Amino acid sequence: MSDTRTSAGVDNFAVSKKMFTWQVEGERSITILTAGNLATTQSLISLLDERSVSGEERDPSILHQPTMFQVARLVGATLREIIIGASETGQTSADQFGASIIVGGQIKGGKPTVFLVYPEGNFIEITEDTPYFQIGETKYGKPIIVRAYDPKMDFADAIKLLLVSFDSTVKSNLSVGLPFDLQIYETDSFTSDRSKRIQADDPIYQAIATGWGDALRDAFQKLPSYKV
Amino acid sequence: MSDTRTSAGVDNFAVSKKMFTWQVEGERSITILTAGNLATTQSLISLLDERSVSGEERDPSILHQPTMFQVARLVGATLREIIIGASETGQTSADQFGASIIVGGQIKGGKPTVFLVYPEGNFIEITEDTPYFQIGETKYGKPIIVRAYDPKMDFADAIKLLLVSFDSTVKSNLSVGLPFDLQIYETDSFTSDRSKRIQADDPIYQAIATGWGDALRDAFQKLPSYKV
Repeated sequence: MSDTRTSAGVDNFAVSKKMFTWQVEGERSITILTAGNLATTQSLISLLDERSVSGEERDPSILHQPTMFQVARLVGATLREIIIGASETGQTSADQFGASIIVGGQIKGGKPTVFLVYPEGNFIEITEDTPYFQIGETKYGKPIIVRAYDPKMDFADAIKLLLVSFDSTVKSNLSVGLPFDLQIYETDSFTSDRSKRIQADDPIYQAIATGWGDALRDAFQKLPSYKV
Repeated sequence: MSDTRTSAGVDNFAVSKKMFTWQVEGERSITILTAGNLATTQSLISLLDERSVSGEERDPSILHQPTMFQVARLVGATLREIIIGASETGQTSADQFGASIIVGGQIKGGKPTVFLVYPEGNFIEITEDTPYFQIGETKYGKPIIVRAYDPKMDFADAIKLLLVSFDSTVKSNLSVGLPFDLQIYETDSFTSDRSKRIQADDPIYQAIATGWGDALRDAFQKLPSYKV
């Protein structure tokens, strides 16, 4: 799941998609989520896009990589190339052009998996112990994931957890906002059919956002008080 | 309330008090909470301490300021002097030596109040709309304050809220840790008698920390699921 707010200061914000999918029917489905400098992430998506249609050998395409690991390597190398290029003017540090990327998907012959790609171009893969990643404004939404995540939870509960986590962030930080983009990938489907944009007036999101406030206050009341 | 963990990397951490009180019986009680670079905050406390005992006119003391506003100005000026002094070697930016300070208390003739002092030395005061401040690693613990804070809550509930907020941070970030220092100031008491150190094995803290996890999971289960 990704939010869609982009901002350069509180007086300059807009809606901008941060989830992008490439697919070859029956063969691969690759989804990228972005966080960080918008010029960097837009360049990344455009370069990956351009190279996936040009079909030329000299420009490696994520549509021709044999494994998800190679896809992550290519995304990392492309991201690094953009950040270093932007920093070469020497006016500012590379940090300012930074971005983090989540790359998930499946290529025929391999299992579905997810990578987190750092601005330096290196990356890590999900593990059984921590089978999720956060990028961008991660801190507000982390405590509920730490507490409520359960590897045995079903997809409906996992989406609920994502909504509660994003909603905690939205209520605490102006740089994150609705609508949210959601994608569920079904193993061996090689499609992104189960995608959805969740608007602020979505009735279930509304029920979760208000219900969560009430549920939190109830839960809070039940705890013992600390008298000093 | 303040935590007591200080760290320079995960391999170098220690317990260090971040709450300090100066008082003149029947006349003033001033409490300072610190966050940020430990060398900066220790210098600040030492300078304030030294100047409060020397009694010399040329070094203004927080024990001689006529109002809490003047105390906040003095703390801000002292903090700025330390940060600029540390940056003068020119090796690194002033940011690295940064610290944020909360100054609260009461001086006879005035009301109790709280200020947040920035590394630049300027400061803001609590208002009726937002009568609390956070400094340091603030993000993990903010969502529960945003949701559960109620200006009408009593002190026992306020302490419970602080414990839940700190506990969310402790569970998400290694740079925050127990014990916690707590101080309640009673208007016109001019003492810090109601202070307490809360250890990790404190039974009420334990009940809140485990109870909160269970309560959160219960609350989470009650929310509607999102089917896609």
